[in-house]
Amino acid sequence: MATLIAPDHPSPVEDAESLRKACEGWGTNEKVIISILGHRNSVQRKLIKQAYEEIYHEDLVKRLESELAGDFEKAVYRWMQDPPNRDAVLANVALRHVNQDYRAIIEIACINSPDELLAAKQAYHSLYKHSLEEDIATHTKGDFRKLLVALVGTYRYNGEEINASLAQSEANILHEAIRGSTFNQEEIIRILGTRSKAQLNATFNHYRDEHKISITKNLSGDTKDEFLGALHATIRCIYAPQKYLAKVLRNAISKTGADHDDLTRVIVRRAEKDLKDVKEFYYKRNSVPLDHAIGKATSGDYKAFLITLVGTEGH
Amino acid sequence: MATLIAPDHPSPVEDAESLRKACEGWGTNEKVIISILGHRNSVQRKLIKQAYEEIYHEDLVKRLESELAGDFEKAVYRWMQDPPNRDAVLANVALRHVNQDYRAIIEIACINSPDELLAAKQAYHSLYKHSLEEDIATHTKGDFRKLLVALVGTYRYNGEEINASLAQSEANILHEAIRGSTFNQEEIIRILGTRSKAQLNATFNHYRDEHKISITKNLSGDTKDEFLGALHATIRCIYAPQKYLAKVLRNAISKTGADHDDLTRVIVRRAEKDLKDVKEFYYKRNSVPLDHAIGKATSGDYKAFLITLVGTEGH
Repeated sequence: MATLIAPDHPSPVEDAESLRKACEGWGTNEKVIISILGHRNSVQRKLIKQAYEEIYHEDLVKRLESELAGDFEKAVYRWMQDPPNRDAVLANVALRHVNQDYRAIIEIACINSPDELLAAKQAYHSLYKHSLEEDIATHTKGDFRKLLVALVGTYRYNGEEINASLAQSEANILHEAIRGSTFNQEEIIRILGTRSKAQLNATFNHYRDEHKISITKNLSGDTKDEFLGALHATIRCIYAPQKYLAKVLRNAISKTGADHDDLTRVIVRRAEKDLKDVKEFYYKRNSVPLDHAIGKATSGDYKAFLITLVGTEGH
Repeated sequence: MATLIAPDHPSPVEDAESLRKACEGWGTNEKVIISILGHRNSVQRKLIKQAYEEIYHEDLVKRLESELAGDFEKAVYRWMQDPPNRDAVLANVALRHVNQDYRAIIEIACINSPDELLAAKQAYHSLYKHSLEEDIATHTKGDFRKLLVALVGTYRYNGEEINASLAQSEANILHEAIRGSTFNQEEIIRILGTRSKAQLNATFNHYRDEHKISITKNLSGDTKDEFLGALHATIRCIYAPQKYLAKVLRNAISKTGADHDDLTRVIVRRAEKDLKDVKEFYYKRNSVPLDHAIGKATSGDYKAFLITLVGTEGH
């Protein structure tokens, strides 16, 4: 479930006018900006952008960028992007970043539905005149590359039907690939890179039943290894996405100098989707409500904006 | 250019009525069926199917199947399918066939536009409750599998922009991968499996300019090797699709007992697209017009139907 609380039919014109007022004169009224944009879903935000453009012949997002600063500005900017465009930009940023962090790409490839991933790939074409697949393939190498290109490239079947005997045989193939005498990445990539999520979850369940240990726990080896790290993240994003995101938030918050990019990404991407479930996992694991943790790790308008999106109705 | 000649606004209701009459009573009037369906484009055929269903509460395609026989029946059946469904079925047939022939899959992956391929993949989901990627990965192995899954999986950028220095460097990577001391399939698959067609064609042109030989001629080795065969077909489908299809037709016709599946597939898939260009390549290479060659290799209603689609206005 989502955490975003939005009214049913707000007036885009009134919203545009209030935002304009909040931007005009001496000093910006951030509270108004947060109180409006922090309570509008993506369709409503799109209508506000259109109304603002029509009335003031000015790009609302550009105006906000010039009025706001720092992490708050970045979060509002991400929040105002259309979801497919946002994912395309996040994937591109991950590829161009010096310390490339591919978790954003794995989230986009594996937590999105097949059609959401497709929309992000189409947005990527428009923005960068390349395919996401080719840019990933250019910036990575080895098994890590094969895994990422497969995850992004595949158009998974999205149905719920599963084949139980296939789950059984592929759980065994994965076990043999992971625990056998030679680590066989090829079969792992084939299975993770092509099967439907429902089928993969049946396979992971069978793995746990048969081998009395979850596949991720069984994936031993150097946790700094790029390929193994990506494999862990992939399986978690498919098997327990909300639990995985709670962990990403935990890591982002507990870093010395919280990692605001990770924090912003997860909250902005999931507030309209499943952030309520992520919050529950967060509380269960950390015994601290997510909004309290965010409150301690951040400050100012950025903090107020994130907490508006996350909601404060307890854990 | 297409070879199909269709009137601008035929009446779907009149067509449905004429087809019904052709099917009724003693004996079927195949000539009428050919004269109507052989001159209607895919949108018009769809409207005829709808009109027929509404008037007679009967599925036109099922009725035709029960009236017709042999290669003619198969060709009409393929012709009446929506293009994305047809491609999905052709890909599935190729995978389930005893002597698996993957050329159909390579044609679908590499000659189709990225959006046509996507539509075929979506149709595949609906029909088979699996993704095309996973079924290919299940039925194939090794480098051959990696290539096919990459070709089908990627959502290529479809723009015309190219990067000339990238074409130069990747032509050299391909040359090194093919002619170097160890054959490097990984880089070949990355490049063919992710770059846009425009970019790949620039790369193939640069290869030819730099090395005075085309990349396909340079791909020596056992022509019976599955992976090398697929690599040849892939490059030809991207670089010179009409010339490639002329070759497929030539092979289909010159076999003892022409290969009617290949013949039907190419003609039915391309009659509304670029069969006129294919015909020109055919004539240039064989000095025999395609319709003459088909006339010699086939007979009866099947022959009449194919020649209607191919057109007889010379080569």
